Amino acid sequence: MSPSRPPAVYLDHAATTPMRPRALAALTDALARTGNPSSLHTAGRTARRTVEEARERVAASLGARPSEVVWTAGGTEADNLAVKGLFWARHAQDVRRRRVVVSAVEHHAVLDPAFWLAEHSGAELVLLPVDAEGVVEVDALRAELDEHGDAVALVSVMWANNEVGTLQPLDEVVALARRHGVPVHADAVQAVGQVPVDLAASGVDALTVSGHKVGGPGSTGALLLRRGLAVTPVLHGGGQERDVRSGTLDAPLLASFATAVEEAVAERAEHAARVAALRDDLVRRVLAEVPGATLRGPSDPARRLPANAHLTFAGCEGDSLLYLLDAAGVEASTGSACQAGVPRPSHVLLAMGVGEDDARGALRFSFGGTSTQADVDAVVAALPAAVERARAAGLTSTLVGA
Amino acid sequence: MSPSRPPAVYLDHAATTPMRPRALAALTDALARTGNPSSLHTAGRTARRTVEEARERVAASLGARPSEVVWTAGGTEADNLAVKGLFWARHAQDVRRRRVVVSAVEHHAVLDPAFWLAEHSGAELVLLPVDAEGVVEVDALRAELDEHGDAVALVSVMWANNEVGTLQPLDEVVALARRHGVPVHADAVQAVGQVPVDLAASGVDALTVSGHKVGGPGSTGALLLRRGLAVTPVLHGGGQERDVRSGTLDAPLLASFATAVEEAVAERAEHAARVAALRDDLVRRVLAEVPGATLRGPSDPARRLPANAHLTFAGCEGDSLLYLLDAAGVEASTGSACQAGVPRPSHVLLAMGVGEDDARGALRFSFGGTSTQADVDAVVAALPAAVERARAAGLTSTLVGA
Repeated sequence: MSPSRPPAVYLDHAATTPMRPRALAALTDALARTGNPSSLHTAGRTARRTVEEARERVAASLGARPSEVVWTAGGTEADNLAVKGLFWARHAQDVRRRRVVVSAVEHHAVLDPAFWLAEHSGAELVLLPVDAEGVVEVDALRAELDEHGDAVALVSVMWANNEVGTLQPLDEVVALARRHGVPVHADAVQAVGQVPVDLAASGVDALTVSGHKVGGPGSTGALLLRRGLAVTPVLHGGGQERDVRSGTLDAPLLASFATAVEEAVAERAEHAARVAALRDDLVRRVLAEVPGATLRGPSDPARRLPANAHLTFAGCEGDSLLYLLDAAGVEASTGSACQAGVPRPSHVLLAMGVGEDDARGALRFSFGGTSTQADVDAVVAALPAAVERARAAGLTSTLVGA
Repeated sequence: MSPSRPPAVYLDHAATTPMRPRALAALTDALARTGNPSSLHTAGRTARRTVEEARERVAASLGARPSEVVWTAGGTEADNLAVKGLFWARHAQDVRRRRVVVSAVEHHAVLDPAFWLAEHSGAELVLLPVDAEGVVEVDALRAELDEHGDAVALVSVMWANNEVGTLQPLDEVVALARRHGVPVHADAVQAVGQVPVDLAASGVDALTVSGHKVGGPGSTGALLLRRGLAVTPVLHGGGQERDVRSGTLDAPLLASFATAVEEAVAERAEHAARVAALRDDLVRRVLAEVPGATLRGPSDPARRLPANAHLTFAGCEGDSLLYLLDAAGVEASTGSACQAGVPRPSHVLLAMGVGEDDARGALRFSFGGTSTQADVDAVVAALPAAVERARAAGLTSTLVGA
């Protein structure tokens, strides 16, 4: 960034969000102490105490018991542990259980482990379709379980979609799966801090949480794992985390992570109302002022994450829009940051039945704790010209390509 | 820690060592910026630049190309990726290659993945024996490769042992494995910053590095992976790290990790000489002043990590010694922190032919950047009484148990 450039309007909080001051303070404070939580001397026991206090705080914030928290190095690792770990453990208990049922709109950290299990470990992958708003088709799950219930190893349906913000009908998913004794994993990376997330109340068996999406540090996450549910480890070694996950526990990062989760959950209702109002204003004005703009995902704001807005712009390439907005000082995303730069339309939009051409013109605006009304105004000011230029560029390249 | 307690003598740097001030400053500095390195906007590209600069610095410090650095969340993940990833990739290329050859004294982050592959993925585990000083038997590797060369998927021999500090004859291991086209992985977690570690010069194909062992932050690590060598991912998802490893990259931690590696390597020779002198003094005085003390590992200090001292005390339980020393303000370890609290004698000592009873009386002292002569003096002052009490306790429990 050149020093003369004003601070950008950052509307990509779903990709990563600034650290909360209290989480940063917790990190800095704990970094001053040395100690491996597995060591038995005083320094080690002090670090262990920090880790276990963090565990209690994360558990209490998310309706889990402390023993149900398995630390990981982030959401991706937690998703891998849930999908692979549940598949391997369930398949080992009963070889018939080889079907892995996941929604078609999962994050790649769920989808790719599922695809890999199918290629590599004898799993059979079942993708659950979604409707035009990105809501998983519960009837398809019912039919799958009625027909193959004994053969399903696990179901994974995310709490809320990271691109279009759709909240999934987890109550119904859990009720169906329970009838067949099938565990349910939910990636709640985007949900925590935006909607109520409670392991016990949800009936979900495994739940993924990430630190840097809630104002905590990167490289932190957890899989909340219902007591008594067996998973095969993905990382083997020293046997930290009751042999479910190995790797030296990181007291400073975990203290900071817990502080962020605790604060995000405590401030959730107020935060959600505030960002939803900003989001609603953005969507209303963009739809009114930008020709060819279409809101994607749920039309009912109550069925989508409060911080999420997702639109497509007919005749535009999302990447062009993103760069034009960036040049105008507005930072947004075409979808998942993890897939940024991949020249394919989003699998989420395609699963919702959006045509390839429309899907290419996608932009996601995601709000966070630092977002303001001025951010919305800046987007509304910059977007019409960006769309016009992106459309002209698209037209040129179509003509050149013809 | 009670506030009146004086700062402890910390001699467990092999478990974890304090962060270097420059690494801490790099972390704090980068934490002030927000941005997902996968995002395409300015904030994302700035974070990406931080990550790639860190990659160049780690590569340059360890004789690798930047493209040969695969970031992980620590040594355990890197070891898992090396052992499982190489096994799966090699086995997929040629189904006959199912033998996983590892030394009997590897860290559990190598051993346990190897055992798991044998139980779960059709691997055949071959443990290479070591001699009385913990040096891997090269003749056994030669025989294994002569007999089964076409069936070996990989060889994993650590650069230096984490418990007894033995440096392994990697040159010979590499020369033998090359003849059979077998890749070699080396866990260099304890070696970096103590002895010269250079991927290209060593001929090793995959090399594990950890941040918190060299004064960097926890939750950082890397697998250096020779260009062109295929590994199957352990963590699937967004495809960061050229699809070899997924998970959001953590710009602040990686900037800090690179700073620590760079400084540890730059200061290595001076550091090694300093800690070796402290270590030699400790060993000499303990052997002279504590009856029943035996040095384990290499007798030639040049063949052991300069910061490592490992002794057994006949008739003592290592855990008792550890707690007695801790009460006297000296923090040490019975062996690997990752196995602390496990009521079994160390697999390393047993592999070296140490009897179970002797192996139970093990203590590891490991030096670091903050170690001083006063630390050595404190150990020499505290140890005789601790050994006497531990021995008396051992005798009592033997009598009670009889």
